[in-house]
Amino acid sequence: MGVVVPLNEAREPSQSLAPLLEIVDEDMNAINRIILDKAVSDVELIPELTHHLVNSGGKRLRPMLAIASSKLCGYKGKGHVQTAAAIEFMHTATLLHDDVVDESNTRRGHKTARLIWGNQATVLVGDFLLGQAFRMLVDVGSLPVLRILSNAAATIAEGEVMQLAAAKNTSTTEDAYLAIIDAKTAALFSAAAEVGAAIANRPADEQAAMRSYGRNLGLAFQLVDDALDYSGDSARLGKSVGDDFREGKITLPVILSFRRGNDRDREFWNRTIVEGNISDGDLEHAIGLMKKHKTIETTLDRARSYGSIARDGLAIFPESSERAAMQDVIDFCIARAH
Amino acid sequence: MGVVVPLNEAREPSQSLAPLLEIVDEDMNAINRIILDKAVSDVELIPELTHHLVNSGGKRLRPMLAIASSKLCGYKGKGHVQTAAAIEFMHTATLLHDDVVDESNTRRGHKTARLIWGNQATVLVGDFLLGQAFRMLVDVGSLPVLRILSNAAATIAEGEVMQLAAAKNTSTTEDAYLAIIDAKTAALFSAAAEVGAAIANRPADEQAAMRSYGRNLGLAFQLVDDALDYSGDSARLGKSVGDDFREGKITLPVILSFRRGNDRDREFWNRTIVEGNISDGDLEHAIGLMKKHKTIETTLDRARSYGSIARDGLAIFPESSERAAMQDVIDFCIARAH
Repeated sequence: MGVVVPLNEAREPSQSLAPLLEIVDEDMNAINRIILDKAVSDVELIPELTHHLVNSGGKRLRPMLAIASSKLCGYKGKGHVQTAAAIEFMHTATLLHDDVVDESNTRRGHKTARLIWGNQATVLVGDFLLGQAFRMLVDVGSLPVLRILSNAAATIAEGEVMQLAAAKNTSTTEDAYLAIIDAKTAALFSAAAEVGAAIANRPADEQAAMRSYGRNLGLAFQLVDDALDYSGDSARLGKSVGDDFREGKITLPVILSFRRGNDRDREFWNRTIVEGNISDGDLEHAIGLMKKHKTIETTLDRARSYGSIARDGLAIFPESSERAAMQDVIDFCIARAH
Repeated sequence: MGVVVPLNEAREPSQSLAPLLEIVDEDMNAINRIILDKAVSDVELIPELTHHLVNSGGKRLRPMLAIASSKLCGYKGKGHVQTAAAIEFMHTATLLHDDVVDESNTRRGHKTARLIWGNQATVLVGDFLLGQAFRMLVDVGSLPVLRILSNAAATIAEGEVMQLAAAKNTSTTEDAYLAIIDAKTAALFSAAAEVGAAIANRPADEQAAMRSYGRNLGLAFQLVDDALDYSGDSARLGKSVGDDFREGKITLPVILSFRRGNDRDREFWNRTIVEGNISDGDLEHAIGLMKKHKTIETTLDRARSYGSIARDGLAIFPESSERAAMQDVIDFCIARAH
């Protein structure tokens, strides 16, 4: 163990997630029941819109991490299930607001909630889910867990604002980009892994180890996601190749292509990403520039590097099926790129 | 004491708030420092946008209620100050999202944040402030306080969704309308008053008394606000008479006018409120119908009635300057109408 599986030998992604799915299976059924239960409201729009998202085929990676981490840490109570459900609500709330802010029309191959119910309802139901998440966490009653997840909530929003401020700015540095995905994506992965150790009252070094695992897994996950947007298989991903391009999103493949390109390339990126002036063939040209400058490869290299840090984060824990499953998640996330 | 001051003898509104201001003065300075301190972020947009709202002349009624309630309940610790600041952040987050949902251009006589920084930043900074509020509450460390305020956060959002679902529906009943303002406005007043008793570890009956005081004060406050939108003095209010009319908002003066009117009146309300087809003179005609059917009077009667319940809520507490000041707030809210 401890070796990153080379991509050309990577197992099928679904196989890599299988050990995790087995470990969390029973608890995930309980989580799904809690999610349906806590989306209930006399206000019909709330369960309607929540079910739309909950049923739209997300992997529930974050709650699965919280469950696996709590099991790895020997937690014997019941609070981890409701905590994990609250994490999924926080994530769902973020997706709803993201779609409004990005004016997205599809997510995971389905129409976005904002397209069906409008921006107004989508913002407000997101607010409800965030409030409901905190209500559920208060029920669990662990102040350390509440601390970790309230920090995450504020940090995620901070990351989203950072991303908005960097929007259309082709001269964003890789560092600035990393700070954005650290906050908007890695913070919740990190918190999900950390709460498992916190709820089990594990010592500070184990909580820090889980935090580091989750954070670096989250960074790898987001970087692979950004690479896939220029190289993936739309049907399998449930998202279209080129979505980020059409939305003018600044991601690492673009940042590196802008830096590594010549003046004419930069003019191209400014016209398409900044001005949103996109014609037929521009996406193909963008992908061509990325190939030429190997920026998808670099993006995936970075992902592998963070994946490796995530793996080392877990190394202080004794070998167990939970540890192996959590390490497999890293491979799963990276193998998605192929 | 214990008698509602008749409106024709009402003191000047600012005089009514004076006793409360005196009681909370020192703590409010601390709260203002915390608010500025907790709005700090490396992401410039966050303090910028927060300061805009924080400096735009709100009365900070909700944090003042939390402070006064904790003092009335004999609380001697320091947690009430940070709790009250978190309440103001929650309120500010709600205002930001409200303005986006309502597409409002002015608030308290100033341009709204969404008009200056756009809807996207406004939604996300609202999310940040809500996350930050919970982070601050976790620092205070009282699970009962966290329970009260996470319930309030979910309820407020539920109320906003209910309001959205009732939008443009002229046949909304008074009951349905009350359920909306109970959730979207009264829940935070109620929570603000209740946390004072909770943080002081007062028995359940005193917490319930504070909850009832805050809830009914909030209902009265909102009803007066709704009446003022058709009868107030724009310059003094910092909002324009007719804002609700132009936005097609269903409030009690409209609900009652629709019910008490004839078919022609109902056609008028459907054309203006539902279809948004508003011409010169329509606002005056709307106000004329409200006068004819005495619906502003009824709205203020209801407000007085809730105000009276709020007063009785406080009656189980022994007489004190805090109790008197909190009762004066009721008069202040109702006297705003004249």
